[in-house]
Amino acid sequence: MSILSPTVELAKQLISRRSVTPDDAGCQELMIERLEAMDFHIERLQFEEVTNFWARRGTEGPLFCFAGHTDVVPSGPEEKWDYPPFEATIADGFLCGRGAADMKGGLAAFMTALERFIEHHPDHQGSIALLITSDEEGPFINGTTRVIDHLEARNEKIDWCIIGEPSSTEKVGDAIKNGRRGSISGDLIIRGVQGHVAYPHLVENPIHLAAPALNELATEHWDEGNEYFPPTSFQISNIHAGTGATNVVPGHIDVQFNFRFSTELTADQIKERTHEILNRYGLNYDIKWTLSGNPFITDKGDLVNACVESIRAITGQETELSTSGGTSDGRFIAPTGAQVVELGPINATIHKVNERVKVDDLDTLSSLYENILARLMVQK
Amino acid sequence: MSILSPTVELAKQLISRRSVTPDDAGCQELMIERLEAMDFHIERLQFEEVTNFWARRGTEGPLFCFAGHTDVVPSGPEEKWDYPPFEATIADGFLCGRGAADMKGGLAAFMTALERFIEHHPDHQGSIALLITSDEEGPFINGTTRVIDHLEARNEKIDWCIIGEPSSTEKVGDAIKNGRRGSISGDLIIRGVQGHVAYPHLVENPIHLAAPALNELATEHWDEGNEYFPPTSFQISNIHAGTGATNVVPGHIDVQFNFRFSTELTADQIKERTHEILNRYGLNYDIKWTLSGNPFITDKGDLVNACVESIRAITGQETELSTSGGTSDGRFIAPTGAQVVELGPINATIHKVNERVKVDDLDTLSSLYENILARLMVQK
Ligand SMILES: [Zn+2]
Ligand SMILES: [Zn+2]
Repeated sequence: MSILSPTVELAKQLISRRSVTPDDAGCQELMIERLEAMDFHIERLQFEEVTNFWARRGTEGPLFCFAGHTDVVPSGPEEKWDYPPFEATIADGFLCGRGAADMKGGLAAFMTALERFIEHHPDHQGSIALLITSDEEGPFINGTTRVIDHLEARNEKIDWCIIGEPSSTEKVGDAIKNGRRGSISGDLIIRGVQGHVAYPHLVENPIHLAAPALNELATEHWDEGNEYFPPTSFQISNIHAGTGATNVVPGHIDVQFNFRFSTELTADQIKERTHEILNRYGLNYDIKWTLSGNPFITDKGDLVNACVESIRAITGQETELSTSGGTSDGRFIAPTGAQVVELGPINATIHKVNERVKVDDLDTLSSLYENILARLMVQK
Repeated sequence: MSILSPTVELAKQLISRRSVTPDDAGCQELMIERLEAMDFHIERLQFEEVTNFWARRGTEGPLFCFAGHTDVVPSGPEEKWDYPPFEATIADGFLCGRGAADMKGGLAAFMTALERFIEHHPDHQGSIALLITSDEEGPFINGTTRVIDHLEARNEKIDWCIIGEPSSTEKVGDAIKNGRRGSISGDLIIRGVQGHVAYPHLVENPIHLAAPALNELATEHWDEGNEYFPPTSFQISNIHAGTGATNVVPGHIDVQFNFRFSTELTADQIKERTHEILNRYGLNYDIKWTLSGNPFITDKGDLVNACVESIRAITGQETELSTSGGTSDGRFIAPTGAQVVELGPINATIHKVNERVKVDDLDTLSSLYENILARLMVQK
C-alpha cells in the first residue's frame, strides 16, 4: 500500500467533513491549527451562519493572498455515487468525493505548498494571507464580500490573490482565469389587458406586445468583447404567461433574463440600453435588476506572469488566459485593486455525481503554488 | 303578491334543479311531460353521462327546431351570491339564479310560447322539434353533436333552428346571432438546446428562436373578414419556458394559441399558413391542432327575416345581425344545411356570480318565440 502525500492526506481529511454550505464542519479549524504552527495570525470571522477566517503572516507589503472556500454543494442521492461522497475514497489513481475538485483539493494543495515554502523561506518578503469562507456555493452575502469589507475598513489591501477554484480543463494548469465576465439579471413584467380570445378588440395581449421587443433584445449586438472577453451575451432563462385556460388572453407576461458582460460595458449602460429598447415599443413594464457581479480583469503583470512561468516550469504547458464560466468570489476581491487569478484542478466533475480529482494532479498543483510563492515572495 | 307568469314559473322550476354539466337533474323530464301533453313524440338519447332528447310534433316538412341546453356552469362559492344560486329568487324585478340567462330562461320562454302557439294552431304546417342536451357547457362530445349524428343517420333534416342562447346585449332582441366564427387552437412546442447562460455558444435558446416567429404570427393579417365576420384573429393564450433557475437556458418553449376565423378561411388554410411562417424561421417544432368548430353563417332568408320582423313587431327594435362571441352548438347544426339563428335574453351576467334576467324580458322573449312560430309555421 502506497503512502499518501501530505496534500492528498489533508484533502481526504477535508472531504470527510460534511461541510455543505454554509456549514464549515470543522474544516477551517483543521487549517487554522496548521497555520498557527506556521506563525500565522488568525482572525475568525463568523457572520451569521457563515464561518470565515483571515490568516496573515507578516505585516509588510506586498500582500499575497490565497482565497478559497470550505463549503461544498450537496451530494444529491448518495446511492448514485460509486463511492460515498463524504468518505474520500482513493480508487484508480483518483481521489473521489464531494469537494475533491471544488475546492478542498485546492485548499490542501495550497496548505502543503505553504508549509514547504515557509520551511525553506521563513523570512519571505511581504506578507502571506488566506481568506477562507464557508459560503462560496451559497448566497455569498456573509462570506468573502464581508471579509473584504472588514479588510477595507482598516485599509488592508491585497496585492496578489490566487483563488484555488478549479480552472483547469484537461490538464492541471492548462488554463487560468485572469478575470470573469459580469453578470446582471432582470425580472421583467410586461402588462397588457386580460380578456377572452373571442373578443380581441377588448384585450391587449402582453405576449404579442412582448414578442418584438424580446426579439430585439435577443438579436441586439451589445458589444464586440475585447482581448480578454467574448462579446456580452443576453439570454432569456424563463418566460411565463397565461391563465392555463386556452380561451383567455392573460394580463401580463413574466420574463427573466441574464447578461454576461465584458469590461466594454457597465451594468448601468446595460440597464439603459435595455430600457431604451423596451421604451421604444411603448410597453407598460417594470424590471427588477439584480447585479451579481461586475466584470473584472487582471492584466498581464506580476501575478499573471508568475502563474504563466510556474506552469511552464512545472508542467511544460503554455497556459491559456480565460475569462469564461460563471462568477467567482474574485468579483469581490478584484474591485479593491488586487490582481486576481484563479488556478486550481480540472473542473470536469465539479457539482456532479462522482466528483473526483487525480491524486497526481493535487501534488502537481501543490508544486505550482509553491513555485508561484517562490517567484513572488522571495527577494531576488 | 303578484302572480308569476307561466314562463317565470317554469324558469324557477328549472333553476331549482341543480343541473351542473353534465347532470340534467330532471329538467328534461319536466319539459318532456309538457311536450307529451302537446302530442310531441319523444326520443330520450342518453350518451354516456349526457342526457339529451329529441321531441318532434308532426311528420311533414318544413322542420322547425328549438335547440338548447339544460346544464349550467358551476356557481362558484355560493356565499358570493346575493341569493342562493339554485333557489331562483325573484327580487327587484329580476329572476336570480344560475342558468337564469344561460339558458333556462330561454327554455321556459320557448316552452310557454309553444303551448300558446299550439293551442291556437293545433294544425300548424310542417313539424316542430326540440333538441335539448345537458352537455353544452361541457366537453360537447355526447351532446348536440351526437343527436345530430342520430338524425343525420336517418336523413332527418332541420330546416330552421333557433337556439335560445342569450344573444341580446342591452335589450331583448337587440341582437341575434346568424353565425359564429370558427375556432381552432394549436399547442406549439419549439425546441432548442438547453445549457448554462454562461456558455451561450453551447445553447440554442428556444425563447430567442420563437420570438420573431411569434411576432410574425401575432402581426399577420390573416384576412379582411367579410359582411358578416370581423377579420380572423390570432391570440396566444399561454407561453411557458424555463427551468425556474435563472442561469439555465431551457430546452424548449410551449405556446398555446387560438384562431377565431371567418368564412374567408378554412381550418386547413390556417394550418398551412401557420406552418409556412414557422418553417420560414427554420424552427424545430411540433403543433397539435384542435378544431373546435368551423365558422358558419345563415344568410338573410326565411329564418333571419322571421326573427327580424318579429323583433320589430314585438319590441320596436331593428335587431343587429352578429357573429361575435364564443362558439355555440350552432356549429354542429349548421353543417347539416339548416338555417340557424341564436335568439335569447341579455347575456350580461352569464357564467358570473348573481346571474339574473329581468322577469319582463322572459315574457317578451316568449312572445317573440310565439310570433316567430306564427310567421314560419302557419300557412299564409
Ligand atoms: Zn468553488
Ligand atoms: Zn348557453
